[in-house]
Amino acid sequence: MSTAAAAVYPRVSYEARRPRFTNAVATQLLDLIIAKQSNLCVSADLTKAADVLQLADQVGPYICMLKTHADIIEDFDAKFVEALQKLAEKHRFMIFEDRKFADIGNTVQHQYAHGVHKIADWSHIVNAHTLPGEGIISGLKAVGLPKQRALLLLAQMSSAGTLFTEAYTQQTVVLADKHPDFVIGFIAQRALPSPAGNDYLVLTPGVGLDDKGDGLGQQYRTPHDVLVKDGCDVIIVGRGIYKPGRDPVAEAKRYQKAGWDAYLASLAAAAGRK
Amino acid sequence: MSTAAAAVYPRVSYEARRPRFTNAVATQLLDLIIAKQSNLCVSADLTKAADVLQLADQVGPYICMLKTHADIIEDFDAKFVEALQKLAEKHRFMIFEDRKFADIGNTVQHQYAHGVHKIADWSHIVNAHTLPGEGIISGLKAVGLPKQRALLLLAQMSSAGTLFTEAYTQQTVVLADKHPDFVIGFIAQRALPSPAGNDYLVLTPGVGLDDKGDGLGQQYRTPHDVLVKDGCDVIIVGRGIYKPGRDPVAEAKRYQKAGWDAYLASLAAAAGRK
Repeated sequence: MSTAAAAVYPRVSYEARRPRFTNAVATQLLDLIIAKQSNLCVSADLTKAADVLQLADQVGPYICMLKTHADIIEDFDAKFVEALQKLAEKHRFMIFEDRKFADIGNTVQHQYAHGVHKIADWSHIVNAHTLPGEGIISGLKAVGLPKQRALLLLAQMSSAGTLFTEAYTQQTVVLADKHPDFVIGFIAQRALPSPAGNDYLVLTPGVGLDDKGDGLGQQYRTPHDVLVKDGCDVIIVGRGIYKPGRDPVAEAKRYQKAGWDAYLASLAAAAGRK
Repeated sequence: MSTAAAAVYPRVSYEARRPRFTNAVATQLLDLIIAKQSNLCVSADLTKAADVLQLADQVGPYICMLKTHADIIEDFDAKFVEALQKLAEKHRFMIFEDRKFADIGNTVQHQYAHGVHKIADWSHIVNAHTLPGEGIISGLKAVGLPKQRALLLLAQMSSAGTLFTEAYTQQTVVLADKHPDFVIGFIAQRALPSPAGNDYLVLTPGVGLDDKGDGLGQQYRTPHDVLVKDGCDVIIVGRGIYKPGRDPVAEAKRYQKAGWDAYLASLAAAAGRK
């Protein structure tokens, strides 16, 4: 599968792909990736605002994106949001709230715009499952597009025994093709073809250099696996960076280099095939 | 499909099914349904705490369950939770936070237990998508079972163009059968067979007597459709009860009666087939 995907989708540079996107978040993200030579997204799965902010400040220089779970932060408030936004400006990274919306259009509109978290007000990027049908995209888009936000669709997951099928993944791409102004990519394990010829960014979770799993179904692959073999664009690393005993700065630098080296290797491989 | 389902699953009374459940929430819920003669769950999709509490107090006497979206309530806090719990005791209804968890086990544990909402501390019932695999159930169960909570799995949805397939629905039942101590039922559109012979409650959203859809993909069916034709157990009604211009008390009474009449009709139909 990976070889076939690589043959069909030889790596194209981030620079060359930039003009293919109409959504401003996508072009800003590609600019950041290029400028910082980082395709690393750090996942801040921490439950205290101060810990998230400390991590963001530590790894900020080495990442293109910080992935948050606002709903696990016990002392989430407007001050936290403001501080996070300042760090995003200081270090130049995008904020991706990993909300995994999974409800009908009317409900996700409220969940995105309202509540304690008011996600649409601060998160450049959110994601959603397509299981509920196209209404989930329409609902989020009505809220997010006027605020110049962007959406990722979950096309695959990295956990064990998922119920994703090839047909589901393909249907997800077809739904994305109906909204390329708002959907900028996928959470997936490999590059995904667009029947409509759109370009999408593929962000890949479950990336780790040292661990194989977490005992609750999570499974890890290396940056080389996902970037060179499977044509993904951004690696998402969580516990590999900050779990107890690890130095977040050293690990962020290590993953940034591993991700960028893998990107350069995939470019070289694509050039070699020409 | 509905006729076949009815033939395979003739209605068994709530009383007769009660001993089949080991989870305390399921037996409490069946007790409430029987005592109040109500299989009505009202969905409180409102964005202000005071509005949710007012609705809960108004419809409380006529429902077995209140479904919440804590994450759309702008002024959600501990006082709101306390007030809601008092109303649940006063009127005897269960609280069902319609969170639709949809992440890996490690993440949903945090989302269930922590954050601003601390859902596990106050919601008797939550629900989850099975798309991420069995880890989502194991993760939630590790948090919820010690607190005597219960889980519903999303086996089908009522919105237009969902990506649910028959195989997905069946795999969801198989996953439930691995955790019948914590999974008490499904969000689905019809009764679902358990290969392991477990009994499950089926809660059905998208029920309405007056509307056909909402313009964002939601589609409505009547209590008779879901209880008599398709063997469901609890009807979930939202905007049918409280949308502007409707009297929530009158509508709750009307849906309670429609739901209970449909239940009695399904019992009579089952008796007639014997």
